[in-house]
Amino acid sequence: MRVGITTSSFAESNMKPKMMLEEAEMEVIDNPYKRRLTESEVFEFILDKDGLIAGLEPLNKKVLKNAKRLKAIARVGIGTENVDLNSVDELGIKLSNTPDGPTNAVAELTITAALDLCRKLSATNRKIHNGRWSKNISRSLQGQHVLFIGYGRIGRRTAELMRPFGVKILVADPFIDKNDLKEDECNVSLNEGLLHADIISLHAGGNDTILSEDQFKLIKSGVILLNSARGELVDENALIDAIDSGKVESAWFDAFWKEPYKGRLLQYPNVLLTPHIGTYTEQCRFSMEMEAVNNLLRDLGVKER
Amino acid sequence: MRVGITTSSFAESNMKPKMMLEEAEMEVIDNPYKRRLTESEVFEFILDKDGLIAGLEPLNKKVLKNAKRLKAIARVGIGTENVDLNSVDELGIKLSNTPDGPTNAVAELTITAALDLCRKLSATNRKIHNGRWSKNISRSLQGQHVLFIGYGRIGRRTAELMRPFGVKILVADPFIDKNDLKEDECNVSLNEGLLHADIISLHAGGNDTILSEDQFKLIKSGVILLNSARGELVDENALIDAIDSGKVESAWFDAFWKEPYKGRLLQYPNVLLTPHIGTYTEQCRFSMEMEAVNNLLRDLGVKER
Repeated sequence: MRVGITTSSFAESNMKPKMMLEEAEMEVIDNPYKRRLTESEVFEFILDKDGLIAGLEPLNKKVLKNAKRLKAIARVGIGTENVDLNSVDELGIKLSNTPDGPTNAVAELTITAALDLCRKLSATNRKIHNGRWSKNISRSLQGQHVLFIGYGRIGRRTAELMRPFGVKILVADPFIDKNDLKEDECNVSLNEGLLHADIISLHAGGNDTILSEDQFKLIKSGVILLNSARGELVDENALIDAIDSGKVESAWFDAFWKEPYKGRLLQYPNVLLTPHIGTYTEQCRFSMEMEAVNNLLRDLGVKER
Repeated sequence: MRVGITTSSFAESNMKPKMMLEEAEMEVIDNPYKRRLTESEVFEFILDKDGLIAGLEPLNKKVLKNAKRLKAIARVGIGTENVDLNSVDELGIKLSNTPDGPTNAVAELTITAALDLCRKLSATNRKIHNGRWSKNISRSLQGQHVLFIGYGRIGRRTAELMRPFGVKILVADPFIDKNDLKEDECNVSLNEGLLHADIISLHAGGNDTILSEDQFKLIKSGVILLNSARGELVDENALIDAIDSGKVESAWFDAFWKEPYKGRLLQYPNVLLTPHIGTYTEQCRFSMEMEAVNNLLRDLGVKER
């Protein structure tokens, strides 16, 4: 059987995922473009493939209908918004994703940003490189009330990493079963949480705006806001007002309303920005690639190794 | 009794340490200069004081001999190198410090820097603020071999905070009892540790150089070096050679050979620098101030509250 890879990189820092495919006697064809494929490129590319290790290229009705041999698509990542689900169903193509892969890396980047903003590391480093040696008092993560808005895999893992620092964990998530929470995890309503949080971390699904003018009114002055989830969860104008007024002392965004982000937050030195790289670590890519390969081999009916 | 404060700030973000002194019926006189006192200033200041909450001002023989009423000095911090220990002995002045106060804040800043360098947070943030949206793969702290050189209070606390991230802990400390180590803490010689470490974190006491040319020869290419302890532990020229050759991928220094630091590391964007602010958090200042007040009241023979 022939497996195509359409992610722009695959098995680059660790060969094992590719070796697993080869050991299962798959013929492996790499992405020849080393970037996201266009519709016409993927149309051509998957014509003769039995399985696909897939990125975010358009796997729409037209493309899939023509891929006569395709039996399984394994996304490296969570989202499947690039795949036409009706076609997949109709054509009997098996579709999988890697829901666990990103958890650790995104949680890790979230606490990295939280610590950086608490201790003003980037800002202080910038000053000293510019010749300014100024010793200012900042805050420890220790003792901070951290509000998790949304408490799925990534929110929980972030809390797990923060716990030893001595934070107080507030959880606002309408879908959570209170009995699932640990003793030190305090279930709150969104409004209640906003009133008490020193740090707010967004981990909700969906695209509904959660923080807009009314919510920013509730927060304490000097809050740190973390967004590893989605830009749309926050009203950008309301956020900028809250930063201007000092209600939000500093913020970190890894997800934006439009990417690449070119908006007004670029002007704020107290807003830490990263280009949606929550999952961009060697370890995370490796674990997602392994998960995808195992999914694909299973869906192609080949024994997992 | 009359207590003088010579630290440049005291009880600024939380009044409790000062209130404790007042509740013990101490008359409290603040540092009138709000900066480190000179010899002549401290000479005058402590003439009529029974106790001193002390910073790093020169408490030498001349100054102490004249402070006829002085019965106790409580340093807010660890170091007592500013105090003439012979005079203190001779004059029967009780001297205390706060060895536990800095632990958590310094450990926290160390892991902040480790995460920042692993995930290239500061560097990526700088790029995006300059209009460059470039998604590069970095490394997770997860799975990294972290070598602790020196494993006292701060080293141990740093390891404790890193453990949930899934690091591998290597400990090089000639003063450690192997039986005191936990199961996941691997006792190594310095050389053995240098051969295997992905991240090296300095927590040794003393001023002897630990890392110079010979040691940098041993390390793997691409190591991250963290120094929250003392500049002198590292040979600056050898370090710069190791950075230039790529053996040291990136580094963080919070302690320097001379402070304020104006040296060559300022030229390296891959070296994160902070102005010796390991203990500069509200929580840490508070806990050290509380510890110092309790020490002073004990040494003045007043009941602790």
